[in-house]
Formats: sequence, structure tokens, C-alpha cells
Amino acid sequence: MACKFYLYKGRGTNSENGHLWIYANEIEKFDGEYENGDIIEVYNFRNEFIGKGYINDVSKIAIRIMTRDIHEEIDEDFFRKRLHAAWEYRKTVIDTSSCRFLFGEADFVPGMIIDKYEDYYVIQSLALGIDKYKGIVVKLLTNEYGAKGVYERSDAKVRELEGMEQTKGFLTEPFDTTIEIIENGVKYNVDIENGQKTGFFLDQKENRAAIQRLCKDADVLDCFTHTGSFALNAGIAGAKSVLGVDISEYAVEFSRKNAELNGLSETVKFECHNAFDILREWSREEKRQYDVVILDPPAFTKSRSTIDGATRGYKEINLRGMKLVKPGGYLVTCSCSHFMKPDMFADTIADAALDAKRTLRQVEFRTQAADHPILWNSDESYYLKFYIFQVV
Amino acid sequence: MACKFYLYKGRGTNSENGHLWIYANEIEKFDGEYENGDIIEVYNFRNEFIGKGYINDVSKIAIRIMTRDIHEEIDEDFFRKRLHAAWEYRKTVIDTSSCRFLFGEADFVPGMIIDKYEDYYVIQSLALGIDKYKGIVVKLLTNEYGAKGVYERSDAKVRELEGMEQTKGFLTEPFDTTIEIIENGVKYNVDIENGQKTGFFLDQKENRAAIQRLCKDADVLDCFTHTGSFALNAGIAGAKSVLGVDISEYAVEFSRKNAELNGLSETVKFECHNAFDILREWSREEKRQYDVVILDPPAFTKSRSTIDGATRGYKEINLRGMKLVKPGGYLVTCSCSHFMKPDMFADTIADAALDAKRTLRQVEFRTQAADHPILWNSDESYYLKFYIFQVV
Repeated sequence: MACKFYLYKGRGTNSENGHLWIYANEIEKFDGEYENGDIIEVYNFRNEFIGKGYINDVSKIAIRIMTRDIHEEIDEDFFRKRLHAAWEYRKTVIDTSSCRFLFGEADFVPGMIIDKYEDYYVIQSLALGIDKYKGIVVKLLTNEYGAKGVYERSDAKVRELEGMEQTKGFLTEPFDTTIEIIENGVKYNVDIENGQKTGFFLDQKENRAAIQRLCKDADVLDCFTHTGSFALNAGIAGAKSVLGVDISEYAVEFSRKNAELNGLSETVKFECHNAFDILREWSREEKRQYDVVILDPPAFTKSRSTIDGATRGYKEINLRGMKLVKPGGYLVTCSCSHFMKPDMFADTIADAALDAKRTLRQVEFRTQAADHPILWNSDESYYLKFYIFQVV
Repeated sequence: MACKFYLYKGRGTNSENGHLWIYANEIEKFDGEYENGDIIEVYNFRNEFIGKGYINDVSKIAIRIMTRDIHEEIDEDFFRKRLHAAWEYRKTVIDTSSCRFLFGEADFVPGMIIDKYEDYYVIQSLALGIDKYKGIVVKLLTNEYGAKGVYERSDAKVRELEGMEQTKGFLTEPFDTTIEIIENGVKYNVDIENGQKTGFFLDQKENRAAIQRLCKDADVLDCFTHTGSFALNAGIAGAKSVLGVDISEYAVEFSRKNAELNGLSETVKFECHNAFDILREWSREEKRQYDVVILDPPAFTKSRSTIDGATRGYKEINLRGMKLVKPGGYLVTCSCSHFMKPDMFADTIADAALDAKRTLRQVEFRTQAADHPILWNSDESYYLKFYIFQVV
């Protein structure tokens, strides 16, 4: 019989209302035996069932709810249903040639991410309790979703909070880990073995499409370009010139190859710079201005404690970025840090505009792509804020 | 010489930072003579120039800034430049066959709205100071933008705050005021003489496009359908059945004609109901559920003082609307009231979900279309909040 966990009176309301996490300090007692990773049952202080999930007492997030149905077993059929729902959703809302197939908590499979690159799948397993189901998931992906190969990229630091080691490698027979995908008409080689996260940031798919209309005949600067994706969307939309900048020589090399792959090497160039440095320098050069400036930095903060520094960082790049926009041109700016809340990010941009003495007209506000849905009862799933401004 | 207005110390900071309005209670004194509607100059208490604009001491918004350049005259050339900038912007960001051509403050022409329906233009003049420039604008639209006709729809209540009467009528030779437009592949007859506002709500153009991907093979309920626009977008996307509901018999008749115009009368039906009533009734019928429910109500609040009632209204329709969505189906919901702030609207929806015992996954959040840009220093220009949720 499953071990039963009981929450303190007055705690666990979030999980009763749909959040999938139970924190260690919400648990009053348990009845039965368990090992970390086991499926257990959760009850409130009134002995009312909240859900079934997996336990790991090493983690502050002690329990993650898998189902609200006491009769639902966590077995192959459970994962079949979850993957089916995730796939049907994505077929409705987005181009699925390459997409996020499963987004952890927001797809009710806490701790597991699956990205699909054409017929190849990359799994991230971020919690002890979900780790043991990888085999089932690989089998389902292979048998029911035509996976030609599955790779694991569980080399994420958060696993250490679960007492687990980082790991990566093939979950099927080995295959070539450089995969060609097409997104918004742009081709990319994705390096699922050594690229960041699972190899590509699929979450900006619709945002990259949104900048295309700004870029025809434009001179474009793309800062923190990573695999060159915004730069290449500008290029394919008919930009006059595009300069993508990244601090990593590896990223710059990779981006150049992606430009070649699209026959865009003549217009889309990449240079290796610290974006902070060049934004500071170039914004002082009177004649250097662009029709479109894009700022897609990595998360400046991954916790509440570093928000102040992050805010300064966002203000700095946005202030410099605005100055580099011709009057009437466009600033594309985003934050992918969950801890940089939407209001804080907006305030920071407004602050930067005041200092830069520029007026902003908001063309569009967007979040992460629809294959990264935001579960409203679990606001950790909301992280990407994306703005397009005309800078007057 | 222009009359000079001086603001109190510590007031008018917003206008110095880019807002276009000076409230009556920010003005300390003036030097010179003026008549209401005149172009005057504004200075802060340090005698620093803030801008030139038009005065109307009958209105709480006493002055609206037209330019920050003391040398810029408010003449035909001024309007030529403003219209040119507005048009260039729209050509970049949106399909301009029919669009909002000028969005008042957000296009730096306070008090004036221009909507373009194919080759016909509708002007709304909302303030005394801008009213006298209508002639210049009509001339420019005719000579430089190919206007075949211009109609005035200044039958807006806000004119009374300016001590002006409501008015409507031709500003050029008369023409047929029913105009056929095409938006997102859907044809509409727009009644610019008797339709709401200027005849059509152009601000949802991109949002209507966004629902198309949800509607293929779906059973769709569109509440507060007005001219049938969301319903017809659902129809053209291949919905199995669409029911549009509006309290106005005129709107229902008009919507039916629009369905005919698109050859969609078989699948897209319209009925005359009070949406509040049918949402309450139908949400109690166990078997009545839809794949997609759309809620596009009129503004429930047009001032700060009626927010509580409005919040109850939004909660009620969202709660009922969610219950009418099949598990895994979609809720499309919006608020076009500026006073219903984004956070308040979000809280209201969350509240409704809790009561409805349904879990929301946010697919997309959008605002008004790009031809209704949001001027960040003038937050009155931000009003439309639009969500797509999957309702689990």
C-alpha cells in the first residue's frame, strides 16, 4: 500500500488548488513506509485526498503530484495518456515539426521535459521520482511517435537539489546528434549533444516569427545571438544587413554555419563580442544606429536573491540598446528569467527609456511559445517576457 | 504670440516624461491671452519648455501636447508628417487594407482617431483643439492617401467633457457607407454610419487570427459576437459548428449577412440572446459543452468608480464560460476596458477558475493589434487584454 502523507492545517492550499508541488515544510506526518522516488498519497489535515505523486525528502520540493485521481495508476498507460494529451494539444496550437513535446508540470508530468527535433527526441529528467520512468517514455516515443532516436540531456544543475548527478547520453541506439530542423522557414543544425539545454531554444519560435515583419530592408543588430536564430529570421525576412553578436566563439561558429545553410552568409554576419561591452561602446558612437536592435540575453537571475543585479543588467542593456535604435526604428527585448516578474521587467524598461530620453510605443507583447504553456496554478511555468517597441 | 502656461512645482512630471496630457490642476498660471482650442506653450516652474499643444479650460484635461519642438508649427505640414509616420509604421507592422490609420495620443495627434476601410476613411474627433484641423486631414487623406470618401463619427460621449456636441456625417461628397472589407481571409460589410464606434473593431484583427488554429473541426460558441467577427474566423478556419450570440437584433442580422457573404451560413449561425442569461442557463445543462468558447464583451467599466461591478461581471461570464468548455477545450476571453487593469483581469479569471474547479493552461496572451500601439508614457492607450486558455 502506498505511504500516506498528511499536510499541516492551513498549508498546502496551493496544491489543493492545482499546484503540483508540496514543500517539505507543509508535511506534518506520514503513515506507512517509503523510499525516495516512490509514488505516495497526499491528504490535507481533514484527511481529504489531494493527489498521488512522488516523494523525495532530500528536496525542498518534497512531493510532486502526478494525478488527482486516486484510482489512476502511475504506469505505462498513465504516460501513454499524458503524452497523447500533450501531443494533441501541440498539433492544435503550433507547428510540430520541431517543438517542445512535453513541458513538465504544465503537462502534468512534473520534472520531465521532452523536446522534439524532427524525428529525434531529447529528454530532460529533473527529479528523482520521474527518473525511473524514462524507459517507459522512450518506449512510447519509439513505438507511438516514430522516434528514430532519443537522447538524454539531464546535465542540469537542478538535479543536484534532488541529490542526483548530472548525466547525458543515448537512451536508444546511438545516432548523429546534429539534427537539421526548419523553423519559420529558417534551417538550423541543432547540436543536441553539446548545445545549451536540449540544443535549441524552441520557446521563441513565435517571437522570432513576429520580428520578421520589422526586418525587411533593415539594418539589424542581434545581441546574445546564441545559435543565430533571431539574426537568421531577420535575414530570411529580407534584412539589408544583420550583425549577430555572442560572447561564445563556439556559438559564433555555429551561427555562421547556420547562415551558410540558409544561403544568407552575405547579409547575416556574426562576431564574437561581450554584448555588454559593445552595447556600451557602440551606443557612444554617434553614427552607429540600427533599424532594429534585438536583445535576447540569457537569464540574468536564477533566484530571488540576485534580482537587484539582474535588474541593473537588464536596465543597462536596454538603455544602450535603445540608444542604438534610429528614431522610428524598433527594439526587440526579452527576459527569460522566471524571477524577473513581468511588472519588474516593464518597470526596468520604462526606467531605461527615461534615462535614454527615448519614447516607447509598444507594438507587441508576447510570452513563451504555445508549446510551453503556462499552468496558471503553477506560476513557475511562466518565464518568458517578450516586447517589440517602436523607439521614437 | 502664443499664450504661455506655467505648471506648479512638483506637478506635470508625467508630461515632461512623455505623457501628452496636462490636467487643469497642474496649471499654476498663464501669461497672455487665449481662446479654447488655441495652440499654447507649456513650461514647468523653472520656465523650461515642455511642449506646445491645445488648450480647453472646460475639460479636466486642459492641455494636450502636440509637439515637443518649440519651432514646429501646427499646420498642414505638421499633419502631413504625423500621417506619414503613422502610415509608414502601419505598413511595417500590419495588413493595411483596413486598419487603424491614426490612434490619437499614441500617434502624437491627441484627440483624433482615423480608421481606414479599404479606400474610405472614418475620423473621430474627440477634443475641441483638434476639431478645427479636420479639414486639413481630409485634404491630406484625399490627396496623399487616395481616400475616395471620408466620414465623421464624432458621436462619442467623451466629446461632452470637452463642451462639444456629438456629431456625424460626410466630410467629403456622400458615398455608400456600407463598405466591404477583408480581414484574415474573412469578408465583412462594415456599416460606418451606424455601426458601433467607427463600424468595426479593428483592434482584434491579430487576436481573431490567433483563434483560427483552435477552431478546425470544433464546436464553437461566440458570446457578444457583435458583427460576428470571431464566429466567422472560426467558420473560415473549418469549425464544425459555430453559434454566435448577441443581445442586439441588429447585430445578429448584420452577422448573418456577413456569414452569407462568406458562404458560411451552413456552419456559422447567429441567435439573439442576452449572453449573461444564456451563459448562466446553458452552463447548468450537463450535456451542452463546446470545444471553444469565446467571450468578447463590451467594456463593463468605463471609469474607476464602476470597477467592482465590472469585476463581478467578468467573473460571472468567465466562470460560466469555463464550465461550457469540454475538458481539454479552449476558452478565449478578453477585456477591452482600460480601467480593468491587466492584473485585475488576471485575478478575476483565476478566481473564476477556482470556483469553476477547472485548471487553466495559458496558450497565449495578447493585447490590441499593432495598429493600436501602446504609448508607454500614456497608459490610457493600453486597454485590450486577450487570453487563450486550454481548460483542463
